Amino acid sequence: MAGAPIVTAAVVIIGNEILSGRTADVNLTFLGRRLNEEGVRLREVRVVADDEAAIVEAINALRSRFDYVFTTGGIGPTHDDITAASVAVAFGLPLIFNEEAVARMREHYSAGQLNEARLRMARTPEGVALIDNPVSKAPGFRVENVYVFAGVPRIMQAMFENVAGELAGGTPTITRTVSVFVTEGEVAEGLSALQERHGDLEIGSYPFVRDQKLGTSLVIRGTDAGRIDTAADALLGLIFELGGEVIEDSGAAR
Amino acid sequence: MAGAPIVTAAVVIIGNEILSGRTADVNLTFLGRRLNEEGVRLREVRVVADDEAAIVEAINALRSRFDYVFTTGGIGPTHDDITAASVAVAFGLPLIFNEEAVARMREHYSAGQLNEARLRMARTPEGVALIDNPVSKAPGFRVENVYVFAGVPRIMQAMFENVAGELAGGTPTITRTVSVFVTEGEVAEGLSALQERHGDLEIGSYPFVRDQKLGTSLVIRGTDAGRIDTAADALLGLIFELGGEVIEDSGAAR
Repeated sequence: MAGAPIVTAAVVIIGNEILSGRTADVNLTFLGRRLNEEGVRLREVRVVADDEAAIVEAINALRSRFDYVFTTGGIGPTHDDITAASVAVAFGLPLIFNEEAVARMREHYSAGQLNEARLRMARTPEGVALIDNPVSKAPGFRVENVYVFAGVPRIMQAMFENVAGELAGGTPTITRTVSVFVTEGEVAEGLSALQERHGDLEIGSYPFVRDQKLGTSLVIRGTDAGRIDTAADALLGLIFELGGEVIEDSGAAR
Repeated sequence: MAGAPIVTAAVVIIGNEILSGRTADVNLTFLGRRLNEEGVRLREVRVVADDEAAIVEAINALRSRFDYVFTTGGIGPTHDDITAASVAVAFGLPLIFNEEAVARMREHYSAGQLNEARLRMARTPEGVALIDNPVSKAPGFRVENVYVFAGVPRIMQAMFENVAGELAGGTPTITRTVSVFVTEGEVAEGLSALQERHGDLEIGSYPFVRDQKLGTSLVIRGTDAGRIDTAADALLGLIFELGGEVIEDSGAAR
């Protein structure tokens, strides 16, 4: 496992349609889960409008602070797709017609179809690495530590998988989830003491309602399965003391 | 309609469970839609971890820049619920046991149930206005222009509705959506020209696949229904010229 033990990332979701509530974002859940599997901790997400100043500010604030930044959205053919131009501004790079991107699109579109609007999708900042789009060819790209993906989930996911292998993942996070019919308020005190005794682990609690009963999912996260299982044993003891019912135990798993 | 014509907001979603992909956020879609209905434009969303520095930074960056900030999550009884304490730090206010919040919780919990952990939920920065929680009593609160809501969607939604009436909404946004079986690449050029002729409107395009055919939803947003309908007429003419099929037209609606 080369590199820093903790590798971090941020995501920038670009699009007025998410902010207006018109479209529910599904990319965040995918990226959070997949980054976690790759040993990369997603630390912050920003959703910004199709607005150059907002996109530039978010990218520049995050790319200096996290190991990786992933953007989704705004790389289509219409006038409101301004991500490529905004990334160029963020990096102070010229926006060019990327010859390789044009070539890939020529394979997909007939000459008549490859109109001026579609050719907009071949514009990138100068000197980027292209990211293959197996669905509709117009590629994403990477500049330094910033990966620019499409917003359409199927295309975004394919682009992510195309670069997942090159991410220098840190120590992977291992998680064990125990779901119990005990309320957060009942388990809170014991849980706090457990967290204090296990400073290397992150213990979270998430309330739920099932069969009209209040319950809590208790999630233990860390990098050492043995330490996690030790904490989980203590947690199960606590639930037993409280007279609570354990309804699910995931076991330690990446 | 008193106040500024454009009223803006940001949302801070607090919680490791969203960043890890474990839980899909549904609060953003609700808030985006409801704020829009109240004449408030949601301009930015940040998702941050259960981490004081991250929460403080997000709140302080956004509360000076937007008319309203809404936070969701992190106000429960467990050790990882640190939103109230973080908001106190952001405003430089002492964190107190809020007597009124304690009184409200006493109505809901018996003396034995109202343990130390649950009483954590009565801690707020000094001098806040409480926001009623009809579901489980532990209240949210407002400090200046920052509204602090629960993360559980049912409770968050109830808290929002309790304060919606006090938001000084600006000019409401009116939207007309026309969905067509024309690809984005085909409509892009005409759409761009249409946007240039209607600088007071925001014209967005969102691709979709239906019945295995590619289509585009064209969304015209503005504040004047007449101007929107004029642009929509031109848009429908453009689709007709392209030989495209209109499959839905919402008409102008708030």
